[in-house]
Amino acid sequence: MTSTDKYPQFSALIRERYSCRAYSQAPVPPQTMTAIFEAARLAPSACNRQPWLFLVPKGDDELCAVREAYPRDWFKGAPEYIIVLADTEAAWRRQCDGKLHSDIDIAIAAEHICMAATALDLATCWVCNFDPEALRAAFNIPGRYEPAAIISLGYPAEPGDIPAKTRKSLAEIVRIGKF
Amino acid sequence: MTSTDKYPQFSALIRERYSCRAYSQAPVPPQTMTAIFEAARLAPSACNRQPWLFLVPKGDDELCAVREAYPRDWFKGAPEYIIVLADTEAAWRRQCDGKLHSDIDIAIAAEHICMAATALDLATCWVCNFDPEALRAAFNIPGRYEPAAIISLGYPAEPGDIPAKTRKSLAEIVRIGKF
Repeated sequence: MTSTDKYPQFSALIRERYSCRAYSQAPVPPQTMTAIFEAARLAPSACNRQPWLFLVPKGDDELCAVREAYPRDWFKGAPEYIIVLADTEAAWRRQCDGKLHSDIDIAIAAEHICMAATALDLATCWVCNFDPEALRAAFNIPGRYEPAAIISLGYPAEPGDIPAKTRKSLAEIVRIGKF
Repeated sequence: MTSTDKYPQFSALIRERYSCRAYSQAPVPPQTMTAIFEAARLAPSACNRQPWLFLVPKGDDELCAVREAYPRDWFKGAPEYIIVLADTEAAWRRQCDGKLHSDIDIAIAAEHICMAATALDLATCWVCNFDPEALRAAFNIPGRYEPAAIISLGYPAEPGDIPAKTRKSLAEIVRIGKF
């Protein structure tokens, strides 16, 4: 049996997604945001717990607060942010060792966001090096939710200017058989 | 500014990905596996650490070992498995609180695997409820690597038979503004 690629653009989509740090100020239409959240909504999760909540800051005070939680000049230039909250109470824990699977689940959903956005001509950047307690205080985030990532998004300032990706080789990341 | 969907199939691809628990015994061609790993290779990760290693069990003893780590009848029927190892030494830790980001990183890469496989007519299933120490012992996995997920994959026994997804509504998962 052989495979034909039904979605020839998927490999192109993966190549087009990059960490964008220069955005235009064009607003993102609401229907585009909805399409992006729909991609996240359909993500798989451990035991289908869907332990995620996507918080969209609105208004100058909230935009200022999210920018203060990750004070970088480029980050201030993004027109939209999605704060990805992990619901640590809803998330599945493995019985044998208690491992909490919320990080895995929200990462899947957040990457669906990034790829759906890329497919809609937007650009994104995963941000994890923010101050989670500053965000919690500014947005009154209840204890059960962990601020797990911020995705900045908007139309890129320079569409098509996609930097080359620096990655390990396949030989470095794929191992056939045991150690 | 408005968006046009350059990749109209991406939303279809997300809908076609499902947790497959019935596989045909048709082998997966090596070039198809390579295309799938290439999709994982290009995934983003915190500080580009790429803290992942994909272990492919080969031969009857290794297939038996992976199946014993997650003893389910349906799981035995998959022709291929990818054991996703998180490199906890290479992974980025956030300075302010020491949070390790390996789960987030491997989840992004593993979901690239699942979507790339779906685009190539394969089906997959994320498995996390396995015995990590059984896997570690059977494959001599060094301590720095955490067995984080097993992705079963193969051609589906019933192509096109995609179950409906049970998910929360958009209203339940998107919040505009602070709590």
